[in-house]
Formats: sequence, structure tokens, C-alpha cells
Amino acid sequence: MNFTHVNAANEPTMVDVGAKVPTRRVARAQCRVVLGPELLSRVQAGEMPSHKGPVIHTAILAGIMGAKRTAELIPLCHPLGLDDCKVTIVPDGPDALRVECTAVVTGRTGVEMEALTGATIAALTIYDMCKAFSHDITIDSVQLVEKTGGKSDFHRPENL
Amino acid sequence: MNFTHVNAANEPTMVDVGAKVPTRRVARAQCRVVLGPELLSRVQAGEMPSHKGPVIHTAILAGIMGAKRTAELIPLCHPLGLDDCKVTIVPDGPDALRVECTAVVTGRTGVEMEALTGATIAALTIYDMCKAFSHDITIDSVQLVEKTGGKSDFHRPENL
Amino acid sequence: MNFTHVNAANEPTMVDVGAKVPTRRVARAQCRVVLGPELLSRVQAGEMPSHKGPVIHTAILAGIMGAKRTAELIPLCHPLGLDDCKVTIVPDGPDALRVECTAVVTGRTGVEMEALTGATIAALTIYDMCKAFSHDITIDSVQLVEKTGGKSDFHRPENL
Amino acid sequence: MNFTHVNAANEPTMVDVGAKVPTRRVARAQCRVVLGPELLSRVQAGEMPSHKGPVIHTAILAGIMGAKRTAELIPLCHPLGLDDCKVTIVPDGPDALRVECTAVVTGRTGVEMEALTGATIAALTIYDMCKAFSHDITIDSVQLVEKTGGKSDFHRPENL
Amino acid sequence: MNFTHVNAANEPTMVDVGAKVPTRRVARAQCRVVLGPELLSRVQAGEMPSHKGPVIHTAILAGIMGAKRTAELIPLCHPLGLDDCKVTIVPDGPDALRVECTAVVTGRTGVEMEALTGATIAALTIYDMCKAFSHDITIDSVQLVEKTGGKSDFHRPENL
Amino acid sequence: MNFTHVNAANEPTMVDVGAKVPTRRVARAQCRVVLGPELLSRVQAGEMPSHKGPVIHTAILAGIMGAKRTAELIPLCHPLGLDDCKVTIVPDGPDALRVECTAVVTGRTGVEMEALTGATIAALTIYDMCKAFSHDITIDSVQLVEKTGGKSDFHRPENL
Repeated sequence: MNFTHVNAANEPTMVDVGAKVPTRRVARAQCRVVLGPELLSRVQAGEMPSHKGPVIHTAILAGIMGAKRTAELIPLCHPLGLDDCKVTIVPDGPDALRVECTAVVTGRTGVEMEALTGATIAALTIYDMCKAFSHDITIDSVQLVEKTGGKSDFHRPENL
Repeated sequence: MNFTHVNAANEPTMVDVGAKVPTRRVARAQCRVVLGPELLSRVQAGEMPSHKGPVIHTAILAGIMGAKRTAELIPLCHPLGLDDCKVTIVPDGPDALRVECTAVVTGRTGVEMEALTGATIAALTIYDMCKAFSHDITIDSVQLVEKTGGKSDFHRPENL
Repeated sequence: MNFTHVNAANEPTMVDVGAKVPTRRVARAQCRVVLGPELLSRVQAGEMPSHKGPVIHTAILAGIMGAKRTAELIPLCHPLGLDDCKVTIVPDGPDALRVECTAVVTGRTGVEMEALTGATIAALTIYDMCKAFSHDITIDSVQLVEKTGGKSDFHRPENL
Repeated sequence: MNFTHVNAANEPTMVDVGAKVPTRRVARAQCRVVLGPELLSRVQAGEMPSHKGPVIHTAILAGIMGAKRTAELIPLCHPLGLDDCKVTIVPDGPDALRVECTAVVTGRTGVEMEALTGATIAALTIYDMCKAFSHDITIDSVQLVEKTGGKSDFHRPENL
Repeated sequence: MNFTHVNAANEPTMVDVGAKVPTRRVARAQCRVVLGPELLSRVQAGEMPSHKGPVIHTAILAGIMGAKRTAELIPLCHPLGLDDCKVTIVPDGPDALRVECTAVVTGRTGVEMEALTGATIAALTIYDMCKAFSHDITIDSVQLVEKTGGKSDFHRPENL
Repeated sequence: MNFTHVNAANEPTMVDVGAKVPTRRVARAQCRVVLGPELLSRVQAGEMPSHKGPVIHTAILAGIMGAKRTAELIPLCHPLGLDDCKVTIVPDGPDALRVECTAVVTGRTGVEMEALTGATIAALTIYDMCKAFSHDITIDSVQLVEKTGGKSDFHRPENL
């Protein structure tokens, strides 16, 4: 088996997906933004009580908009529409936020990279909004959680 | 102290940098792409002996091009030029690649987000080029390593 | 009934359109650019006699190109192709131009925002090309005129 | 006096700003989104009590991001950075929201089109988020309010 | 017969493709980059022995990414996805490189402009990477080689 | 001397321009679009008598807008503003149009690629608007004509 994005001449290449049948494909990716307990508290305080506030909203929107532009950012990704893209951001332990992005398409190729890009851009946006407080913020555990609808499904045994 | 990107009405907001003097600003960010030993070997085999090959080249270019578009992706970042942007990718232990992105600008605001975005997009591109072999790839330790030239410098005590 | 773009946690969200059947959808939007009689005469003089000239052509093209990029501009819009996009610009009374944009797609979601965005970007371009003469230009009455092909049609009782 | 964006051959053209001295330039633009009283109440209810909520946040971010991309949308605008861009959205009478966008640059050309584009994209985003309730929404009175720092200042006698 | 992109009022216009049936459409375009023998040798030396190196890889990726953005660049092109896009670059005589781009879509309109844009952006990228050695580089013979799958096929009698 | 865009590890790389002093830099590039006599006549007929018409206007605007986006298209180009960008299109012999693009910046790096990209995108747009009549259209002689303001000037001995 060879790299699908490298041809026999060892050059980068796209994959022809024209022979595939369009199916509904879903991919879900996650990552963690480790802020430390104090900065996490600040984010939560600004976002309360029942309404999500500006940090979370900005990150959600950046993630959705970033996912829509995946094919411009990842050189060998196919340009495609999206039926849906959702980003959620919740506390994850005493010092971190968990970002999850779910991308959906009815198409000939999957949206794994869209989900990963959406989660990552949302996480970078949280970093941007918090960096005046600290530069000791780490984005960790960027991973695919599951994908369905393609040639083979993937379900990560236990989530990050 | 408040969030610089949130105003008194709790709305997302940009920061006015017009009063700052343009200086040369450098930011360096890193992340790791954990591929596992077998997939790391495959990447290295395809890239040898002395020439970096298609996976690494594609990721480097994606990182540079992504860094140039940071202000389109991160909602409250200032649009700015770049004097330089370099991406390097080297093995990091038996199972991972380390991506480093250095962004440079002569301007009124820093390029921390550009360096982080460049490193992250390069890492996502490695993922994309390897995902036919495995979906168990993790991007980890996305961090700022150092930044200079702004109001205060930052040097991470020990690199990831 | 709730906002379709706001979820139960009060966060911005896209709408999943994957279950919809692709249909041919048409949307038509309009707006007015109030230039005043003198500036309107100048635009018309430069565009005569039988050929539309540079102001109108530039605005038409900006409108079409803007409509194609709607999903990049409006955060929660779905990315989609367009079967067609037409922009027309005609005098509307003694002091104004009327811009109309018609967008067409065969897809799972409508192109109302594409038509409105195309009309608006065309109007802003007219403003840009005329602003050396006057800053007292107003864009008014940005409205949907009709849309068909979706769950329910809309026809504005009397046009603006 | 001729159209600055039309040359002697009656073709569209940019203006050479290279001989100008960079100055701090500010432009402020406004528009109104007429929603009707019922829909305005819904927006306000979802955004309360003290925190601005998802509709307003999404529109603010879309406006800022749209302003940053003005030179891609308006064909003959100069590409430039922005020192700052602020969008505010407040109720305006019993049935409308008022959107205001202020753009700032230190540069050789003004940011009037950036302010107008930012206000307009924010208004279109409000439309998008409310259109499930009604298609009878009108964007009105898109106008420059003031601009300073260029060859001549402009202050609209009385605001819309 | 009239220009399809010009309407009866002599204005630029898109073509409505909504009535067409989606078919698999392939277009192949070529161009030559005349570098001179010395510069061609340099490019080949840096790309050897068996692996394609940084100049060629960068050009290939730029061509693919450029093809994906054709509808943003060519004003009246339809936005569409791509099933595949391949760029190859080979020596062509003693002083030139030949760039070929093949674009494929399952859609209602062809990808001739995508293939031409991809080939051209790849050629411009070769120019960019070689321009420190010489400004006497010419891109020549940008041509469609063949297209199939639309209303009528095209096969250039003999390739450039 | 080595490729400036290839580092010692044979990887693609940007060039750091931060140490350069900003100067006014001008670059002028040309190309020819060979349409054949009949198609050239058609273009001229539709553009007459004194006003340039839709084909030429569309191509001019596409060239200017393309030049503004050069840094997004050519991977290792620096993002920069433009003081000016002009595109002219004139008949060149009995069967061709000549496209010329002049780009101007006050900056640390030149605009040679902007001028070449602008000329090429304008030429591709002419192709697009004429392709319903013939696919036997060739873009030829894409060349830099002159550049000034950088480390060394360039003036092509005789224009194409």
C-alpha cells in the first residue's frame, strides 16, 4: 500500500473520487485547550450564567467558518459542500476546554479533514482570545473520534 | 484585567493597535504529530535519502500558506503582511514528527497566531496525507515557543 | 419556534440540510442606491449610449463574485455551488439606481442569502466608484423580492 | 472632474495612492435592519439579560471579518491592513436594529469601504439568523457617518 | 451566435446551467515554461535523482490549489467541486518545462477553466521559484488539450 | 548561488525581507491572447465604438482582483498591499489581444509576481468569455517587461 496523496513519481497528488457513489458522511473530531485553572475560570465567568458568551461564540463561529474553508487550507483535499457543521465547547476537567466539531456531507468523499480543521481553528481562536492573560496555553489531543458513511467506519475505542 | 477581545458590553472586539510603533516581531510555535512508529517509518522512507519528499514539502507549503491567511481564519486577528514565514518538520522520537513555524513581521502587532496557525495547518496536512494508513494519528502540544519584539518577550522554559 | 441558527444552549449553529431533497431553488433580491440626480446623470453619461459602461459592469461583476462567496461571509450559510447568478442595474426614479440579483441553485438549501449578498456587494461597488463625487450616497431597501423551490415560496406583495 | 475609478478610455481602474503619506484614517458607517416589533423582541429576548447573545455576536464577528476582506469584494479597493475594526449593534426604535462599523488604518488610503462593508455584512448576518421567522426584513440607510484623516474629512450633518 | 457571457444589454453575465444533467467531465490543459538551458539544468539538478524536489512539488501544489479556486478568480465561472485535479511537470526540449493540468468533475458544467488555471498558476510558481536567477523566463502555449463529457468533446489535433 | 526559495535541506522556503528598506517598486508584465482574426473581430465589435465593453472590462477587473490575491496563489510570495494595479488590453496584430498589467507597491519586496498574475488572470478571463466560439485560443508570451525600485532594475530589451 502506498500514500494515496503521493504518485509513482513521488509527487503530491489528489485522489480521483469520481467513481464513488455519493453517500451521507459524518465525521467528528475533538481537541483539548489546556488553559490552566485560573484562566478556565475567567472564561467561564465571562460566559455565565445561562448564556454562552463571547469567547465561546467566537470560537464556535471560527470553527464552523474554518471547516467550510478546509479545501483551501489542506492542499490535496477535495472542495465540497457541507450539509452541516456543528462545534461544541465544554469544560474538560479543572483546567481545560474540550472542542468538538462534527461535519456532515452528502458526497463522494469524507469530511474527516473538515471536522479536524474546524476543531483546530476553534481551539486556536480560544487561544487568541485568552493570550493576553497567558502564553502558556496548549492545544492537545487533536484526534478523529469517529467517521461513518465511507468505505469503512472508524470509532475511536475510548475518547480522548 | 479583562479579556482584550471582549468589550464592556461582553461582546467580541478587536484591539486598536494604531498607537503602537512598528517593530520587528518574531514568533515561533511548535506541535507534534504522533503517527506511531510504523507510519513514521513510511513517511521517512518516502522522503529519503537526502531530499525531503512530497509529504514534508506539502505540509511545509500548507503551513506557510495557512500562516499567510491567519487573519481570515481567526476572527479578531489583525490583517498584516509577513516579512518571513518558515516551517520545519523533523522526527521527534520514535513515533512522531515535530513541526515548527516561525513567523516574522515588521508591524504594530505580533505574529503569535500566525506561527501557531502555520504549525497547525502543516500538522493537519501531514494527517491528511497519512490518513489512508491510519486514523489513529494525534496532533499534540501545539504551543508558542517564543516571541520577541512586542511589549514583552516570551520564552518557554523548556521546549515541548 | 426558535431561531434555527441558535441551539438549546443559546449558541450559534448551522442547520443540517442533509435530509432535504435537492430541488431547483431561485431567489431574487433588490436594493436601491440613492445617488442624487446629479451623480445619477454622471453615471448614465459615462455609460452611454447603447453600451453599459465601467461603473455598471464593475458593479455587476462584483455582485456576481460576491454572491459566489456568500458562505465565506455569512457565518452560518452552507457552502454550495450556483447554477446561475444574474445582476441587473437600472435607473429607479430621478436619483437612484436599482440593483437586482437573482441566484439559482439545484441543491438542498436556498440561495436567499446569495441573492441579498450579490445585490449588496454590487451596490457597495457603485458607492465605491462614485464616492469621489459625494459621500452622501445611501443604500436603501435591501430586500428579498421572491424565492421559489424550497419548503415554502415567498413573493413580496409589491416590490420596493 | 471625472470618476476616479474610470480612465480616459472609459475602463475601470484603480487609483495610485503611492504618493500619499500614511496617516491614521478612521471611517464610521451605519445601517438599519428593520425586523418589525415582534422579531426585534425575539432577538432581544434571546440576547438577555446582561450578555449579548448569539445573534448579535455572530453579526459582530461577521462584520469584522467582512471588513477585513473588503479588498477582495470591492474590485477597485486597495488591499490594506486594519489597525482596528469595531462593530456595535443596538436597538433603534421599536422595530429595528442599528449596526455601526468603525474601521481604522494607518495608511495611504481610507477605510470608508471597509466600514460600509463591515456594517452591511453584519446586517446581512442578522437577516440570515432571523429569516426563518420572516422574509419581510429590510436593510436600510446604509451610509457613511464620518471619516477623518484623509484629504478632507466628512461628517454627516445628522445621523440616520 | 453571441457571447454566452454577454447579455442583450451588452453586460457581463453568467450562464444558467441548471437544466443540464450532471455528467463526468474531464479537461486537460498545458503550457510551457521556457527557462533557458542553464536554468532548466539547475531545476533538474535540485530535483534529483529519483525524487521530485521542491520546485516541482511547490508548483504542483500551487496548480492544484489554484484550480480549486478558479471560480473566485474567473468572474463568470460557476463555483463547483472537483473529483480530481492532477498536475504534472516534465522537461520539454533543452530549455523548457511542460506543465499539464487535468481537472475532473461530476457536474453540470465543464472544468476547462480549472485545468487552464491550474496549469497557469503552476507555471507562475515555477517562475517565482526561478526568478532570482533570471527574469528572462517566458510562459508560452497555454492551451486546452482536450475536454470530454460536455455537449461536445474537443481534442487538439496535435499537442503543443 | 542557490534557489532563494529552497533551503539547505532542499525544502521550499520563503525569503526574509525584514531587513530591506521599503521603496516604491513597480513591475510591468505582458502576455498575448491569440484568438484568431474572426474571434478578435467579434470581441472588437462588441466593445465599440468608443466604450470598452463587457469582455475587456471583465478581464481588466479579473486581472486587478487576481493581482491583489497573488500571495494566496503563489505559495512563497509575501503578502503585501498594493498602491496601484492597472490592466490594459489592446489589439496586437490581426489575431490577438495584448494584456499588460502594472503593479505598484511601497514595500520591502517587489511586485513582479503580482504583475504576472494580474496579466495571466486577465488573459484567462478573455479565454473564458470567448470559449463558446472556439477552444483554439492560446495564451502566449507571458513575460516581465520591466521592474524598478528593488535591488536591481530589469528592462526587457525589446518587448514581446
